[in-house]
Amino acid sequence: MTKAELFQQITQKQSYLCVGLDTDIQKIPSYLHKEQDPIFAFNRQIIDATIDYCVAYKLNTAFYESLGARGWESLEKTLAYIPSSVFTIADAKRGDIGNTSALYAKAFFEKMNFDSITVAPYMGEDSVAPFLTYPNKWVILLALTSNKGSSDFQMLTLNGGKYAECLFEKVLETSQLWGSDEQMMYVVGATHPQLFQKIREIVPRHFLLVPGYGAQGGDLQTISRLGMNKECGLLVNSSRGIIYASSDKDFAQKAQQTALAIAEEMKKYLQEKV
Amino acid sequence: MTKAELFQQITQKQSYLCVGLDTDIQKIPSYLHKEQDPIFAFNRQIIDATIDYCVAYKLNTAFYESLGARGWESLEKTLAYIPSSVFTIADAKRGDIGNTSALYAKAFFEKMNFDSITVAPYMGEDSVAPFLTYPNKWVILLALTSNKGSSDFQMLTLNGGKYAECLFEKVLETSQLWGSDEQMMYVVGATHPQLFQKIREIVPRHFLLVPGYGAQGGDLQTISRLGMNKECGLLVNSSRGIIYASSDKDFAQKAQQTALAIAEEMKKYLQEKV
Repeated sequence: MTKAELFQQITQKQSYLCVGLDTDIQKIPSYLHKEQDPIFAFNRQIIDATIDYCVAYKLNTAFYESLGARGWESLEKTLAYIPSSVFTIADAKRGDIGNTSALYAKAFFEKMNFDSITVAPYMGEDSVAPFLTYPNKWVILLALTSNKGSSDFQMLTLNGGKYAECLFEKVLETSQLWGSDEQMMYVVGATHPQLFQKIREIVPRHFLLVPGYGAQGGDLQTISRLGMNKECGLLVNSSRGIIYASSDKDFAQKAQQTALAIAEEMKKYLQEKV
Repeated sequence: MTKAELFQQITQKQSYLCVGLDTDIQKIPSYLHKEQDPIFAFNRQIIDATIDYCVAYKLNTAFYESLGARGWESLEKTLAYIPSSVFTIADAKRGDIGNTSALYAKAFFEKMNFDSITVAPYMGEDSVAPFLTYPNKWVILLALTSNKGSSDFQMLTLNGGKYAECLFEKVLETSQLWGSDEQMMYVVGATHPQLFQKIREIVPRHFLLVPGYGAQGGDLQTISRLGMNKECGLLVNSSRGIIYASSDKDFAQKAQQTALAIAEEMKKYLQEKV
């Protein structure tokens, strides 16, 4: 998907919501366990219920891998079920030496047909470059993550930086040399609202994938007002808050109501800025 | 596997070789393609041929994931085939927020029964901690990787470090607070022999997993003399150099000869130091 197509979808749906399909076999309604593929059965209903209110689905691979080969099949089936008009994210946080990253790119962009994959920056340019050779596919690079551990290394200040520069800012700066804002996005956690303005100075045009809204405590208004640019530039993810809005048979209906409520709030911020 | 058991195996086999099962469907002998599971058929022969000369097998998950659910099955079958006396490494370079890392731990330590997994440090302590809750299982944390991109971030110097401290040194220092040398190892690439001495000062007792020997150009003698400690403390990996020593029907025999030659060199270094 191109950046223009993604923006068009945002404009049309008046939403920049990403629904995280972190589907946990332990947490889905028990009556689904009798289905041949309970994970897919759950995801299909969530997708049907939310697709009008979101522009992206993020599938965290951990939830599928924890079920082995069978989980991998549920992942493939779920991806195949999502219409190509909606942006898809493999939240896989991969990254390895060049020839190996090339295989991960093949796994997620060829074997499966994800629009994007999250990649960890620690191993540097040649670990990211293989993902950037696919036209209209995206790398979403971890910059500043939403968890507590983001302060362990990402926020360390560097020697000789242009200003009191942290590692995550260096990641934002350096990685802009690797690919354009038509093929790279950044992960910036909703739990760091005070840093959104600074981040927008470094990457004014890039899309930011913002996890940590909802269950992890981020605030949509602040993120949106500080993080939005002229092409929206935000995909705000909610996983648990939507897909587990109810643990009963009405889970899809509750997911829809929650997604709709978020999208309605997003509409306001979009109208203010875009 | 405990550290004592690993060291005992090293003493017994007089080897600290790790064979990397980076098995690429494009590179295995074509006659194996008629097998029901060509990847597993190849791996089984490599394991049979090399098991007397190595103490560990490292399976890079990218090679298996690139084949989808079928590849995942080959990974599971290969792991199950390796006797429990040999140390097994899921070279997966995972790492995510806590609840998600817990699922990766479940995938690799429960669903499969790997002894260890490689983990990326960028997301900090809570992304690593869930892997450390399993007794006798290991985290192998990326510190200084073997690739060119290791200079992009890992070698940046930090402000206010104890000396001219790089990020990778900070990773070595900080992460020692998270778990002991009975449950953590570090990835240190063979392509940085000049840094082994400094690394041993920071982590004198930990095992180091050393990739980049062979195809990537590292030198076994230098690594061994600078990196070895009283309990050996080294697992030196060779992947392509062993498993693709021949592309014909004699691939297993040539792999055996190559592993044997490396083990014989290792025996010398062990006798000098341990």
